[in-house]
Amino acid sequence: MPNAFEFRLKDAAAEIEAVLAESLEGAHPLMRGTPARLAEAMRHGALAGGKRLRPFLVMETARLFGAAGPGVAGVAAALECVHCYSLVHDDLPAMDDDDLRRGRPTVHKAFDEATAILAGDALLTLSFGLVAGAEAIAPQARLTLIEALSREAGAAGMVGGQALDLAAETEMLGEAEISRMQAMKTGALIAFACEAGPILAGAAEEDRRRLRRFGEIIGLAFQLADDLLDETAEASALGKAAGKDRARGKKTLPALHGHDWTRARLEQLVGEASECLAPYGERAAVLVDAARFIAARQS
Amino acid sequence: MPNAFEFRLKDAAAEIEAVLAESLEGAHPLMRGTPARLAEAMRHGALAGGKRLRPFLVMETARLFGAAGPGVAGVAAALECVHCYSLVHDDLPAMDDDDLRRGRPTVHKAFDEATAILAGDALLTLSFGLVAGAEAIAPQARLTLIEALSREAGAAGMVGGQALDLAAETEMLGEAEISRMQAMKTGALIAFACEAGPILAGAAEEDRRRLRRFGEIIGLAFQLADDLLDETAEASALGKAAGKDRARGKKTLPALHGHDWTRARLEQLVGEASECLAPYGERAAVLVDAARFIAARQS
Repeated sequence: MPNAFEFRLKDAAAEIEAVLAESLEGAHPLMRGTPARLAEAMRHGALAGGKRLRPFLVMETARLFGAAGPGVAGVAAALECVHCYSLVHDDLPAMDDDDLRRGRPTVHKAFDEATAILAGDALLTLSFGLVAGAEAIAPQARLTLIEALSREAGAAGMVGGQALDLAAETEMLGEAEISRMQAMKTGALIAFACEAGPILAGAAEEDRRRLRRFGEIIGLAFQLADDLLDETAEASALGKAAGKDRARGKKTLPALHGHDWTRARLEQLVGEASECLAPYGERAAVLVDAARFIAARQS
Repeated sequence: MPNAFEFRLKDAAAEIEAVLAESLEGAHPLMRGTPARLAEAMRHGALAGGKRLRPFLVMETARLFGAAGPGVAGVAAALECVHCYSLVHDDLPAMDDDDLRRGRPTVHKAFDEATAILAGDALLTLSFGLVAGAEAIAPQARLTLIEALSREAGAAGMVGGQALDLAAETEMLGEAEISRMQAMKTGALIAFACEAGPILAGAAEEDRRRLRRFGEIIGLAFQLADDLLDETAEASALGKAAGKDRARGKKTLPALHGHDWTRARLEQLVGEASECLAPYGERAAVLVDAARFIAARQS
């Protein structure tokens, strides 16, 4: 039985799904004239459901500073496009070579490899256009968002983290290197999601720094919970292959330190995240719930 | 012996090369923390020389409306990053499967396939950050540029054109479909390059439309000249494999109509391009030269 937080997360996911679907329709100004098969592959990659956690964080961190509405949802959907493109490319045969994603064939399985590369490219390209076109957001805030997104999603962030992750299949990484890789691969985009709210709401620099720090902490928790799930869950619960990290000889923190250590560390991270948001009191309760949810998630 | 236009093009290429090199250095704010091998692959893909025609068009169409300087060069370099990412991805085994580019091994040959996918992703991601961060350009102009770049480089533009081009290997395209594919695959980015100048200079809507039209015409000429070269040139002159279109059974307009028709059509397009710019008189001479150069190029 879902709790109140999970209902709220589901509601937000439905809203994002609708905005994404509209952004990926042939009638959208950035999509008009897209070849049918490519558009279908983009939708396959982006409308496959999922928790939509990153856009939820954008919307809730924006709400904390009084911003809501179509501009916010547009930026949130753009970020989800970036996340989905990264999944499409990460699943490719030359990368993680995955056949299943959220219980469905990955894009290169449902279509073909070239189409999957192009659908990913197109989703990434679309995302920046969606932020630029979010007219309800102040121009300078949109530019700040685009520059930050470019940094966090790019060579020094998510893409760089994926490069390090691939290298980890052949090189033995130490604990510090694993942490660095994960902070880039998963952490950067989650941290951006949390920073996006104060940016688009025009909040103070101090608020932005605080939410960024909160995002970094829950990004760590997200990855730890993910690694733990990879070891403990069944493929059917994950909707993707389980136990892959160990099979590939990839070192993770749960593999290094054990499950008990991991659960204690997750508890600690939730405490730190909550402390970060203490200045906002009850108004930040949903974000603290989000941290708890991330640390305890079972899929 | 290069003529005056070619000297000017070379000068601009050197300037762009310098801006690109700086943008791809570890010290650049958008690159700081990039894994060394990924950064190297990005530089391999983007600093391989080439005519730098698209950034040249950005700089010259900006100059026509009185804009020059680091902001303009930054936008021009960003566009070149988009062009270079598209080459890196187009060369991949799942796409055109090319081993050589400008006489050097392609990125997936010099590195590996996964690194080439990621280097392309990173170059594309970087490009939007470079435009957003071009502080010498008015905020609204930067947003307009980002939205237009997202449209022209994305699913409804360049990426969509590449999807159609791949489909053309198995489907027989008619002349109208070939033209549509080429207008998207090559034309969109060249048209954007010409439109970028008036946008970033804050020129009138009419100027923007006129330069856009000019860009569409020279984009057509560019592709026609390219197809003709593919049939007539030696691989050594191209720095890449020649005769590939015919070998793959791809229909091109020169293959359909013959070389004489193609040369006459190129002449006609140069005339139309020149007419487009007639309102600017002598000030647009360098752009008319560019049209002539594009139609007559031998490599």
